[in-house]
Amino acid sequence: MNIRFYNAKIVQQKEDHTFALTEGELWVKGDTICYIGDGTDVSGVCSENEPIIWNREIDVAGNVLMPGFKDAHTHTAMTFLRSYADDLPLQEWLNEQVFPKEAQLTAEDVYDLSVLGIMEYLTSGITSNFDMYNFPRSVAKASADCGFRTVFTSGLNDFVSSVEEMEEDYHVINELSPLTSFVPGIHAEYTTSKERMEGVAKLASRLKAPVWLHNSETKREVLECKERYGMTPTQITESLGMYAYGGGGYHCVWFEDADYEIFRKHHMTAVTNPASNLKLASGICPVKRFLEEGINLAIGTDGPASNNCLDMFREMFLTTALAKVREHDASCISADEVLYMATAGGARAMQLSSCDRLAVGKKADLIMIDLKQPNMQPENNFIKNIVYSGSKQNVKLTMVAGKILYEDGKFEIGFDPEEIYEKANRIIRRMK
Amino acid sequence: MNIRFYNAKIVQQKEDHTFALTEGELWVKGDTICYIGDGTDVSGVCSENEPIIWNREIDVAGNVLMPGFKDAHTHTAMTFLRSYADDLPLQEWLNEQVFPKEAQLTAEDVYDLSVLGIMEYLTSGITSNFDMYNFPRSVAKASADCGFRTVFTSGLNDFVSSVEEMEEDYHVINELSPLTSFVPGIHAEYTTSKERMEGVAKLASRLKAPVWLHNSETKREVLECKERYGMTPTQITESLGMYAYGGGGYHCVWFEDADYEIFRKHHMTAVTNPASNLKLASGICPVKRFLEEGINLAIGTDGPASNNCLDMFREMFLTTALAKVREHDASCISADEVLYMATAGGARAMQLSSCDRLAVGKKADLIMIDLKQPNMQPENNFIKNIVYSGSKQNVKLTMVAGKILYEDGKFEIGFDPEEIYEKANRIIRRMK
Repeated sequence: MNIRFYNAKIVQQKEDHTFALTEGELWVKGDTICYIGDGTDVSGVCSENEPIIWNREIDVAGNVLMPGFKDAHTHTAMTFLRSYADDLPLQEWLNEQVFPKEAQLTAEDVYDLSVLGIMEYLTSGITSNFDMYNFPRSVAKASADCGFRTVFTSGLNDFVSSVEEMEEDYHVINELSPLTSFVPGIHAEYTTSKERMEGVAKLASRLKAPVWLHNSETKREVLECKERYGMTPTQITESLGMYAYGGGGYHCVWFEDADYEIFRKHHMTAVTNPASNLKLASGICPVKRFLEEGINLAIGTDGPASNNCLDMFREMFLTTALAKVREHDASCISADEVLYMATAGGARAMQLSSCDRLAVGKKADLIMIDLKQPNMQPENNFIKNIVYSGSKQNVKLTMVAGKILYEDGKFEIGFDPEEIYEKANRIIRRMK
Repeated sequence: MNIRFYNAKIVQQKEDHTFALTEGELWVKGDTICYIGDGTDVSGVCSENEPIIWNREIDVAGNVLMPGFKDAHTHTAMTFLRSYADDLPLQEWLNEQVFPKEAQLTAEDVYDLSVLGIMEYLTSGITSNFDMYNFPRSVAKASADCGFRTVFTSGLNDFVSSVEEMEEDYHVINELSPLTSFVPGIHAEYTTSKERMEGVAKLASRLKAPVWLHNSETKREVLECKERYGMTPTQITESLGMYAYGGGGYHCVWFEDADYEIFRKHHMTAVTNPASNLKLASGICPVKRFLEEGINLAIGTDGPASNNCLDMFREMFLTTALAKVREHDASCISADEVLYMATAGGARAMQLSSCDRLAVGKKADLIMIDLKQPNMQPENNFIKNIVYSGSKQNVKLTMVAGKILYEDGKFEIGFDPEEIYEKANRIIRRMK
């Protein structure tokens, strides 16, 4: 498919991680952006002898084209637990509500529940996610079938998966589709024995791959880890050799000075999950400190059981707003910095440099933002309008790898939405 | 207009301030709800001799009908400053950015900018607002012309308005339309002399009316007030006799023990503005303490210059999520409690008992929530889905006083949206 967008305001990332808008056209050939400009100087893109045959020409009508959001930490298939067990502290919520229900899931359930989550990502302009859940191959297949981009990391712990299984998943999912990839991971230090963590560290070194995990989400997690090892989760996992090829942590709320140093040294990423950290009363991530330390930041929704929605607009607002109140400084964390985290920062965490921003040669993972809505008016500053006021209602179109998956409220992912809703409801009825 | 809604899930408020859903029909006759039930026992509503002639019969298709949200604190016309001067502390933001720009506004500007804000309220299911701004009559006229419900309170201070003007506005706006009303108010203690505050207290007593103000929004405000008077803003205003007929405060972030006692004694309301308090780094409102003290709570967006959007879904999530993180207690402030604040709690603050909930005899201020969206699935709990996951994209219809003002993304307020956007943009261009 070749698609020409014209009359667009195109969000382009500058060297200094801020963004500028240029007016013009963006052309997509297959899965790749082949042109951005005013539509006149197109030499090298097409010639009179070899014109592009357009499958669609889309009048953007002065609206915004921007890179799709990267949801850098989530558990998509937990859609089935949305609004099921709210208003509980993390450990109780996990042990008494989440784990017993999860034990009843089948591979097919996880496939269907992942499709439901993918639909919600698309409504929020999210074009790829960094997923961790049981039945990794079901998750990856759901993404490949929908045309959605997923980086999967293992949720291995003492009860789920094994280092051998992880290695198999690594190969299967990396080879499944150009849209799916896999990096090693563990659920968390507090659910994984030292021996298993060592096994993962060895595997990651052999595969030359990064390692990911839930890291320092709660104060209690860090305290208990220090009781066990005399070290924080960051320190013990580093001491086991997990970060020879980088990686990162999800949440990263309760960090100590030495932890930042480890993240900086290994070029790791801290993924903040602000809505989930509030809802489970875990705390507020020190985003400003991470920025000052020069550590890459990304933003994740976390799973729909703890959030409860998959909405990058809410997370973007929270990322800057919580930093402001945490630091008693209304000037900290600008809209540009947040937008960078939600796009290129996430892409860096997920090794998705092929679709981190809108530029010629990059994969066409992009969204159209409707400015003709009252929350986007007047036009004092488009980037601030999107980061501080944006909402799912502004997402007119979501494209992944050159394919339009969502447009004007309709999904084009090969599934009937009503059928997916019914399947999800059948799963929760079965578990009652 | 007579409108019949059928196949609906109707959110009804119970005695204990929780909510239940009943399946059935809701009928609107003129501006009033005349029937809620399964459509069979309609005696007393209509008879064979006197059937209702329906102007429209709307198949709700299993979706939710619920009371419209009450935005209990806002400055609507500040739409012109959206994304204009973000990332500044409150005092600097007010004195260096907001006040100089506001000085350039005309009555006509405020009218047009209010219409823009009203459009945004409608997209978020907000059916009435508690507004404070310059040119009160322009604001009220915009609401009356659009068919939107507005309670206005004065923003009197040492530079704007006078007690005499306030009394005139009180009569003009209370008589302008059944949709508009006026209660006395001042901008805040820190902008208003003791003499002026005394004048307002006397006026309110004479009118037997409540008094409203920005109260204890920042720590500095409270400290400076205590330096001036040896009392907090709540204490000095009470000592001047302002609350003989109740009233309340906006923000209420930095409260002392004696302040709660004053609010309780005078049956006052605390309006929380969570997004604005984060963004201006003001702090987090002690919502749990207010609840424990038995003080009525309501939720407001604050103005679009400090938020920057007018979205009750974001505010509802923040109200519970921030309470959880503030109190280190993931179980505090349930979804039902938040929904009560956003509807009936706001109505109580605004003296709008005529439209506080869905019941026969109440004004038909209601909204339809689309459940056939991925963020509302599966159906573990409808109220939690709405409070934790809801978004503007779920608002299918907004009705005020029996009139549909917004439906499927289209406005029916007598204005062309494009023209309103253009007017707002002309205002900001003129000020540059």
